[in-house]
Amino acid sequence: MRILFLGDVVGNLGVDMVDQYLPKLKHDFKPQVTIVNGENSTPVGRGISYKIYKQLMNDGADVITLGNHAWNNEEIYDFIDDSKNLVRPLNYPGKDVPGSGYTVINVNGKKLAVINLQGRIFIDPIDDPFQKIDELLNKIEKEVDYVFVDFHAETTSEKKAMGLFLTGRASAVVGTHTHVQTNDNQILNNQTAYITDVGMCGPFNSVLGMKYDSIIHRFLTQRPTRFEVQNEGDQILSGCLIDLRDDGTARSIKTILIDPSHPYNR
Amino acid sequence: MRILFLGDVVGNLGVDMVDQYLPKLKHDFKPQVTIVNGENSTPVGRGISYKIYKQLMNDGADVITLGNHAWNNEEIYDFIDDSKNLVRPLNYPGKDVPGSGYTVINVNGKKLAVINLQGRIFIDPIDDPFQKIDELLNKIEKEVDYVFVDFHAETTSEKKAMGLFLTGRASAVVGTHTHVQTNDNQILNNQTAYITDVGMCGPFNSVLGMKYDSIIHRFLTQRPTRFEVQNEGDQILSGCLIDLRDDGTARSIKTILIDPSHPYNR
Amino acid sequence: MRILFLGDVVGNLGVDMVDQYLPKLKHDFKPQVTIVNGENSTPVGRGISYKIYKQLMNDGADVITLGNHAWNNEEIYDFIDDSKNLVRPLNYPGKDVPGSGYTVINVNGKKLAVINLQGRIFIDPIDDPFQKIDELLNKIEKEVDYVFVDFHAETTSEKKAMGLFLTGRASAVVGTHTHVQTNDNQILNNQTAYITDVGMCGPFNSVLGMKYDSIIHRFLTQRPTRFEVQNEGDQILSGCLIDLRDDGTARSIKTILIDPSHPYNR
Amino acid sequence: MRILFLGDVVGNLGVDMVDQYLPKLKHDFKPQVTIVNGENSTPVGRGISYKIYKQLMNDGADVITLGNHAWNNEEIYDFIDDSKNLVRPLNYPGKDVPGSGYTVINVNGKKLAVINLQGRIFIDPIDDPFQKIDELLNKIEKEVDYVFVDFHAETTSEKKAMGLFLTGRASAVVGTHTHVQTNDNQILNNQTAYITDVGMCGPFNSVLGMKYDSIIHRFLTQRPTRFEVQNEGDQILSGCLIDLRDDGTARSIKTILIDPSHPYNR
Ligand SMILES: [Fe+2]
Ligand SMILES: [Fe+2]
Ligand SMILES: [Fe+2]
Ligand SMILES: [Fe+2]
Ligand SMILES: [Fe+2]
Ligand SMILES: [Fe+2]
Ligand SMILES: [Fe+2]
Ligand SMILES: [Fe+2]
Repeated sequence: MRILFLGDVVGNLGVDMVDQYLPKLKHDFKPQVTIVNGENSTPVGRGISYKIYKQLMNDGADVITLGNHAWNNEEIYDFIDDSKNLVRPLNYPGKDVPGSGYTVINVNGKKLAVINLQGRIFIDPIDDPFQKIDELLNKIEKEVDYVFVDFHAETTSEKKAMGLFLTGRASAVVGTHTHVQTNDNQILNNQTAYITDVGMCGPFNSVLGMKYDSIIHRFLTQRPTRFEVQNEGDQILSGCLIDLRDDGTARSIKTILIDPSHPYNR
Repeated sequence: MRILFLGDVVGNLGVDMVDQYLPKLKHDFKPQVTIVNGENSTPVGRGISYKIYKQLMNDGADVITLGNHAWNNEEIYDFIDDSKNLVRPLNYPGKDVPGSGYTVINVNGKKLAVINLQGRIFIDPIDDPFQKIDELLNKIEKEVDYVFVDFHAETTSEKKAMGLFLTGRASAVVGTHTHVQTNDNQILNNQTAYITDVGMCGPFNSVLGMKYDSIIHRFLTQRPTRFEVQNEGDQILSGCLIDLRDDGTARSIKTILIDPSHPYNR
Repeated sequence: MRILFLGDVVGNLGVDMVDQYLPKLKHDFKPQVTIVNGENSTPVGRGISYKIYKQLMNDGADVITLGNHAWNNEEIYDFIDDSKNLVRPLNYPGKDVPGSGYTVINVNGKKLAVINLQGRIFIDPIDDPFQKIDELLNKIEKEVDYVFVDFHAETTSEKKAMGLFLTGRASAVVGTHTHVQTNDNQILNNQTAYITDVGMCGPFNSVLGMKYDSIIHRFLTQRPTRFEVQNEGDQILSGCLIDLRDDGTARSIKTILIDPSHPYNR
Repeated sequence: MRILFLGDVVGNLGVDMVDQYLPKLKHDFKPQVTIVNGENSTPVGRGISYKIYKQLMNDGADVITLGNHAWNNEEIYDFIDDSKNLVRPLNYPGKDVPGSGYTVINVNGKKLAVINLQGRIFIDPIDDPFQKIDELLNKIEKEVDYVFVDFHAETTSEKKAMGLFLTGRASAVVGTHTHVQTNDNQILNNQTAYITDVGMCGPFNSVLGMKYDSIIHRFLTQRPTRFEVQNEGDQILSGCLIDLRDDGTARSIKTILIDPSHPYNR
């Protein structure tokens, strides 16, 4: 089983990179499953719209994951309940959170659970991601063959701790949210594919995908500043490619990076 | 001018990696200057001792930088004022902070300023790093040929913003503190070498260099837990190699990574 | 039903104030139940010991509540499970947290639930206090006549929101943790006694009960500083007196304050 | 010298309370100077407008102070530079912050400095309030007779530490920002009037002045919620009255509280 995962798609330039490269990547690497984090895919870089959800699926995604910005475009409340391949973080609190925190998809007769989970260190105090993933896996792990977790979190410590906590239970624990790819892709204990963050898809010369002038201005003044998505210039696409064995463990995880210094030339 | 930089050295395994590999790296890559971040180099992973400072210098370091853990081993107050190649973050507040936030060293008749700077997002509220580096550069930039900044900070946004803020003024802005190497080494505007974080030197199967069992226990219970440095098992060394042009701008920045999956084989 | 509650007892001066005044207060006001927050009652101001627990009970307390410092004196693990009137915050995560988050005591044939609950804004990310208190009340509210909640939290917003959330379900929601008494004691909707914080018992000329020189030094330097409990000088005792009606609602809540400007003269 | 100070005026109900009671309070207590914190005085509870600034001055204020919400209504950039009695926090960073962090007013031949200062614990990382107030007082303290500080901060520890830091240098250190009045008004070392927070003016049945339903919803869901100012129902006015001696020290500080349980009946 080969999984292609692309990190946080930010704004129009992010969606454009997926439009351009996802078909090529699928043609060249032939993943059975493609997962894309769409939490920043609207033109303003916060949340997702139905139109963009459909566009990312048309580009070749099988599942779209989200994160702390899941709810920033209120339109999501209209379509998340009917979109079974759009997954929001599992551990938002309450009994009637719209949408679902995971989906199980069939791939050549095998079942893959795709789970979206969110960290709490320096983000919102939602339910405990360690508790919630443990409960979910207790419930579903006997019925699924593979478990993929997009762990959307800020700190390297919470992410690595989650990777180690799930070693042997998840096939892959892949980080998102910081928008910068890390260089620590590895197989934990020869069982679980792990990377602290796969990075983002979108504007290259930016801070988190935003125009950097206003971000620097904010750091210098600490007064409110409008942040705008960078909408022109160089682009980046970040992700990873994971190969799983039939027993549900991971064989390899490789990073994917397309940017001005790393042109795509397969 | 070639600079070799190694990220946060953690505990005995970190010092051991520097002992083992720094001489080889210097032999093989022939940097004119070697800088090592030593903020976690005591056996308990917090602060630095005089003995270890001397050991790292003997291994081949020219300058040792620090970070938020600079003051955790109180012995530092005894030797920092006399150790001109031991640099603590520039932007600690007050008029009589022990030690210095930068040092200027002579390399083949050229002057290199090595500056340690600390971020504030999700760390302690010390003085504004943007303001302080701006003031320092206004003071010294005409008298030095190269400027190297170890920016010790948590978030990708504060670090990338700093890199962009200093583009054209610093030769290199290199991040530390998260202990995980990022995959975004780049030359900003063909002028300034940048990487969000170079990563750490120390225990490989760990969270930030600490034994992961107690870290996971802490996440699961939220009750006080003793964190201990991982003192056995696989090791990692992380850093980067930066080449600067005579005009003070950067030509290239390459990552260095030695771990079980990346054996050293130059 | 009259309840006397005393806020966070800090260090030796705090225990001394309880020794001195609790018998007088009980004699003068004749509460049926006395509850004391003991999370800072060791000589170092963090946690509680068995000896001090016994001493506070001997002084006249019926129940001791705790807070985020509950676990700082590790001795607590030895006696909390056997001390049914020592209550730690309900919402620590996990299935086998030592001790209990509430106790039910019988008072003249009526049942009073005393619950300790902890906030999350700017404190540790434990389980959701709103969810957990809702679940507990769903389970026990039919079997008890009165519900007293010590809500140990930092911000005025989380505390007032909790008071309003529990209006009509709790007889009293009383805040602790900031160590400063607020002047907003009130009966919410003629049902629930509320105060944002009752304040502390201990050293008067202090910051949170600690010697202020080292606290100011910490603010000025942002470097590690040893904080020590203030162990001499003026003292303060802070608390409140709550009268409940037979139907479980609150009739009144009055603050108690004994300090150099407010000598006890009943 | 008698000073009347009113805490954060929130929304229309807050402005209405000032309209109603400030003339009466001035008539009854005859302060020489009246200071009002207006950081939440627009109808949406964030920032201040020129119209409301003028209205509060017409009601009898001599100086308006602000806080972290100073900049939320962008109109302020149009009039703050020309409004010498509108004071924003002193310690916003940068050399060209609009407006001023203090004003000196003449009262019967005496000079009173009114300073607005903002804390950093759990608020934005602006410049160090301890450093900045020390620098300002070094500059002006010989030229003024009285010093009044509105310290806009979150935690009881930062506020009390500031009060103790300025004991003997400021005539009064009065806290704002938490919107809840504390019961610890006192004269520090017989020199400096102090209260941790004077509380707010505005809607009574609210959380920070906002409708509580949406605040509770936010705590329960952790998803984005629109917060709206409470615009009807009971009202509160909070403040304090400070008497200073001719030598610049404080003689007394008394709280003012008008709400449904504390009708005004002087
Ligand atoms: Fe994102
Ligand atoms: Fe995110
Ligand atoms: Fe470090
Ligand atoms: Fe660090
Ligand atoms: Fe406490
Ligand atoms: Fe506490
Ligand atoms: Fe306010
Ligand atoms: Fe405020």
